Amino acid sequence: MLSRALRIRPMTQPTTQRFPVPAIADLPDDIRTRLLAVQEKSGFVPNVFLTLARRPDEFRAFFAYHDALMDKESALSKAEREMIVVATSSANQCQYCVIAHGAILRIRAKNPLIADQIAVNYRKADITPRQRAMLDFAMKVCTEAHRVSETDFSALAEHGFSDDDIWDIAAIAAFFALSNRLANFTGMRPNDEFYLMGRLPKQ
Amino acid sequence: MLSRALRIRPMTQPTTQRFPVPAIADLPDDIRTRLLAVQEKSGFVPNVFLTLARRPDEFRAFFAYHDALMDKESALSKAEREMIVVATSSANQCQYCVIAHGAILRIRAKNPLIADQIAVNYRKADITPRQRAMLDFAMKVCTEAHRVSETDFSALAEHGFSDDDIWDIAAIAAFFALSNRLANFTGMRPNDEFYLMGRLPKQ
Amino acid sequence: MLSRALRIRPMTQPTTQRFPVPAIADLPDDIRTRLLAVQEKSGFVPNVFLTLARRPDEFRAFFAYHDALMDKESALSKAEREMIVVATSSANQCQYCVIAHGAILRIRAKNPLIADQIAVNYRKADITPRQRAMLDFAMKVCTEAHRVSETDFSALAEHGFSDDDIWDIAAIAAFFALSNRLANFTGMRPNDEFYLMGRLPKQ
Amino acid sequence: MLSRALRIRPMTQPTTQRFPVPAIADLPDDIRTRLLAVQEKSGFVPNVFLTLARRPDEFRAFFAYHDALMDKESALSKAEREMIVVATSSANQCQYCVIAHGAILRIRAKNPLIADQIAVNYRKADITPRQRAMLDFAMKVCTEAHRVSETDFSALAEHGFSDDDIWDIAAIAAFFALSNRLANFTGMRPNDEFYLMGRLPKQ
Amino acid sequence: MLSRALRIRPMTQPTTQRFPVPAIADLPDDIRTRLLAVQEKSGFVPNVFLTLARRPDEFRAFFAYHDALMDKESALSKAEREMIVVATSSANQCQYCVIAHGAILRIRAKNPLIADQIAVNYRKADITPRQRAMLDFAMKVCTEAHRVSETDFSALAEHGFSDDDIWDIAAIAAFFALSNRLANFTGMRPNDEFYLMGRLPKQ
Amino acid sequence: MLSRALRIRPMTQPTTQRFPVPAIADLPDDIRTRLLAVQEKSGFVPNVFLTLARRPDEFRAFFAYHDALMDKESALSKAEREMIVVATSSANQCQYCVIAHGAILRIRAKNPLIADQIAVNYRKADITPRQRAMLDFAMKVCTEAHRVSETDFSALAEHGFSDDDIWDIAAIAAFFALSNRLANFTGMRPNDEFYLMGRLPKQ
Repeated sequence: MLSRALRIRPMTQPTTQRFPVPAIADLPDDIRTRLLAVQEKSGFVPNVFLTLARRPDEFRAFFAYHDALMDKESALSKAEREMIVVATSSANQCQYCVIAHGAILRIRAKNPLIADQIAVNYRKADITPRQRAMLDFAMKVCTEAHRVSETDFSALAEHGFSDDDIWDIAAIAAFFALSNRLANFTGMRPNDEFYLMGRLPKQ
Repeated sequence: MLSRALRIRPMTQPTTQRFPVPAIADLPDDIRTRLLAVQEKSGFVPNVFLTLARRPDEFRAFFAYHDALMDKESALSKAEREMIVVATSSANQCQYCVIAHGAILRIRAKNPLIADQIAVNYRKADITPRQRAMLDFAMKVCTEAHRVSETDFSALAEHGFSDDDIWDIAAIAAFFALSNRLANFTGMRPNDEFYLMGRLPKQ
Repeated sequence: MLSRALRIRPMTQPTTQRFPVPAIADLPDDIRTRLLAVQEKSGFVPNVFLTLARRPDEFRAFFAYHDALMDKESALSKAEREMIVVATSSANQCQYCVIAHGAILRIRAKNPLIADQIAVNYRKADITPRQRAMLDFAMKVCTEAHRVSETDFSALAEHGFSDDDIWDIAAIAAFFALSNRLANFTGMRPNDEFYLMGRLPKQ
Repeated sequence: MLSRALRIRPMTQPTTQRFPVPAIADLPDDIRTRLLAVQEKSGFVPNVFLTLARRPDEFRAFFAYHDALMDKESALSKAEREMIVVATSSANQCQYCVIAHGAILRIRAKNPLIADQIAVNYRKADITPRQRAMLDFAMKVCTEAHRVSETDFSALAEHGFSDDDIWDIAAIAAFFALSNRLANFTGMRPNDEFYLMGRLPKQ
Repeated sequence: MLSRALRIRPMTQPTTQRFPVPAIADLPDDIRTRLLAVQEKSGFVPNVFLTLARRPDEFRAFFAYHDALMDKESALSKAEREMIVVATSSANQCQYCVIAHGAILRIRAKNPLIADQIAVNYRKADITPRQRAMLDFAMKVCTEAHRVSETDFSALAEHGFSDDDIWDIAAIAAFFALSNRLANFTGMRPNDEFYLMGRLPKQ
Repeated sequence: MLSRALRIRPMTQPTTQRFPVPAIADLPDDIRTRLLAVQEKSGFVPNVFLTLARRPDEFRAFFAYHDALMDKESALSKAEREMIVVATSSANQCQYCVIAHGAILRIRAKNPLIADQIAVNYRKADITPRQRAMLDFAMKVCTEAHRVSETDFSALAEHGFSDDDIWDIAAIAAFFALSNRLANFTGMRPNDEFYLMGRLPKQ
């Protein structure tokens, strides 16, 4: 597997990328393997993998956490989890996460419009009342978690969310509170590929 | 000209559109003519024209104001003027304006990435220092115009903006302060056509 | 009519007026005519007319919009419309609009106290519960229009406001979002005459 | 002195006054004496005296504090001290203090326009650069005193303010942080007399 | 009494104390007497007494006000009054008041944990629902007194608070709005003794 | 090692703990081992370990991330890293993190006062200018990471911080943005042991 090459596209306007991408040759094997795997799957290496590779231990913990929340079985669909990412990342003005996860949301939801709607104002998006309640809570965790109270749990329970579902919603909002800050201080640049993904009918 | 038909596409999910579109047959001639003209040019009738048609006098004043700022000769390019619209409309969480003017910005700038970058965080967008200064000032007019002072005029002058250019920047930000609020209280829905416009190479 | 002279009082302390008043002789006829008409009616030319005259097309659109909202027949009395202007302009810290429209509100309401009460804290002003609901909604459009929802429409309907009345409230708040920003970036100075208007018994 | 009568004008619209004015007959002698003295001087009893009379000990401490700051010798003129009151009370949306102290400011400054200008936006008022620096600091104490630093002291020293002058500015802003909150929770109503005071030429 | 000496401990790191403590010899007799009395009672002289001694009249009014609220009979226990001080002083980021009154709260409540809990987030502290309602209202007076309305009075009445109890809550919050600002602009330093007071079992 | 027992102290007032601690017997071996190790070292099991044990994968990723930032070699001392935790957790009103990490900070810094000072207002704490710059940046990442710019990097470089030191500061602030939100939505309760740790001379 390691014989395959990583095809890292040079960033044409890397002005915002504050921390340079490390030399691929210097990466630990497990990290290079993960980069190859994601390249295999997506056709390119998302910059979050390249930027965090500067710090192997943080890289491993970050993606372990990410996968524990985003890839596991859950009463929340994968599209719904991406809705949480897009809504809260927009509140945090995180360019990388809104654009990259906006792409994933379009694909997961098979809906070319939903990501832009949620990014600008999730209150006006084409979502169900249950999804609206989910996003209201995620935004509360994002912006004023210190005010979360039993009232919030009751409101979610009325929409059928269990305590574990509520943990999932809150934990995703909390994880991207971390992720958004990483992307913002490193000036992480969304790959050009993300902008168009999931927007065309037959993609 | 009036013999031509308006091809108004029914909104498939009009849940957010709080004020219904008036019957086309009831519109004054000058307004129907304008709708036809824009349909001719764009291939569809943007919903802002349909929503405001409920109030003919306000419709006429709104578009007269819009055209006076956005269509005239100016030291600001048309793409730069759309940058102001997208950045300030995003601060106001106006779904219609970010999505519709994001499309126009992509076309005017011949850049498929710029609108999303500016919508999420204009401070990280691929723009020139002069454009950055322009947007910093536009955002100040958008969010705290009562603090505008001579210091702001000096900072802009250093980038070569004349007093009339500064008026243009501020007036566009001010006009969309109006426009964003109209779109938000009417639940104005961006037409589906806008989302993909200007994203493909040969468009 | 054009033979009559405009009696423009020089501003004694024009330090805050950032954009100078254009030479009257250079104004287009229709604008000079409007200045004369307002001078005839009010005894002086409010500075908003002089400041905006620098931009004839914007002047025309601005006053067309203003008149469409403020002069038309409406279920909102003229005093109530001025209440909206004063409350929202105070939130935007717009010196011109609070002082000039405060004067108009005193006159329209035949109440020398109401404008100052609303400017400082409309929640403590001598207004009816219906007017309080109107101002609560106007302030929401002013400060967080992206959160306007069906709940707001229902609350207003309980006070007897129709959908068209709600449009009137919101559109006035939206128009002065524009107007306040224009006044603030141009450093528009309220004419000295406004401060005392409507404060004396027999005025 | 006690034989003279207090001429308390009944409040015609006391809806906002949450705590009723106590019966004059029940007041301690020293408080009644103070009420008579202020009535003598002003022609009426400002409501702050009547509202606080409910609590004699707090009344005495409040006015002792007030007088220690507002009546003493200081490098700040009495008009300048009232400017601080009006600017910070407006930030706190305190109807009583803005309207009552606005009247006092007009009289002290012999300027019928200054109070309204400062109440709406002190940054655009006809004041000197030294007064602007004074109000900038007062507003910082009013809204974010936890950020006051040596930089603020240096900026004020450049305008000739001594450490004791700075204490005066800050202490007035701090005292009215108390006063504004008292007025707001008690629903303290400004007497009708204040609105017109100091507005007419020969007053 | 005056023959006894004041044992003022020199501040070891007085970098934050912006206004120096006046020479004890220069203080008026009544103020020196008060300092001795508090030293007798507490074992040291809290810095608020030393800092305010620079201004004898303000010193007298400040402590008269303080005592009128904090030492009198009230339906609020002394511990509850200190809860209000700690919660609102934390919102104002006042180091002196949170640390000094945190100590007093621990002692009054005979609870070594409560002060830190309330300082960080009173919504998660081990308090009764009645105390929670008390603190919610105190925080509203602290941060947005202009929005206090009849609804707040009703909510408190449901917990058995009379109008005079409500005055007590609000007046304490208002008084510490003053006190916090004094401490912040003077850089008032909490005495080292406060940090440990009330934390040990047998204290 | 597994034969040793976990001595979990029942929470006496677990009202704020929203998610119950899982049965110890049900925990995976590696997690139980970690609990035993921390009990060995600290004398008790901090509640963050018990609360997160409900989710083994998230537990593992969380502590891997924590250790990668807080235990590694760095130009930031361990006390300085805890300063970042306390300052940002206080901004997020996270009771668990301020109280637990306040204890660790006191121990690491061998300073019984520093944690309370930083928790209330780090701008007034007894820290060096270099530490002040470090905390200013950490707070910016905490509250407005979208505004981080090259200016911030330059300001830190002037205090001798390398790009990797800056990553450390920002990453700690970002990780506790996650941690604070977890603690707040789960109602995580600080163990009673933390309050007194590091406050006594010989500890």
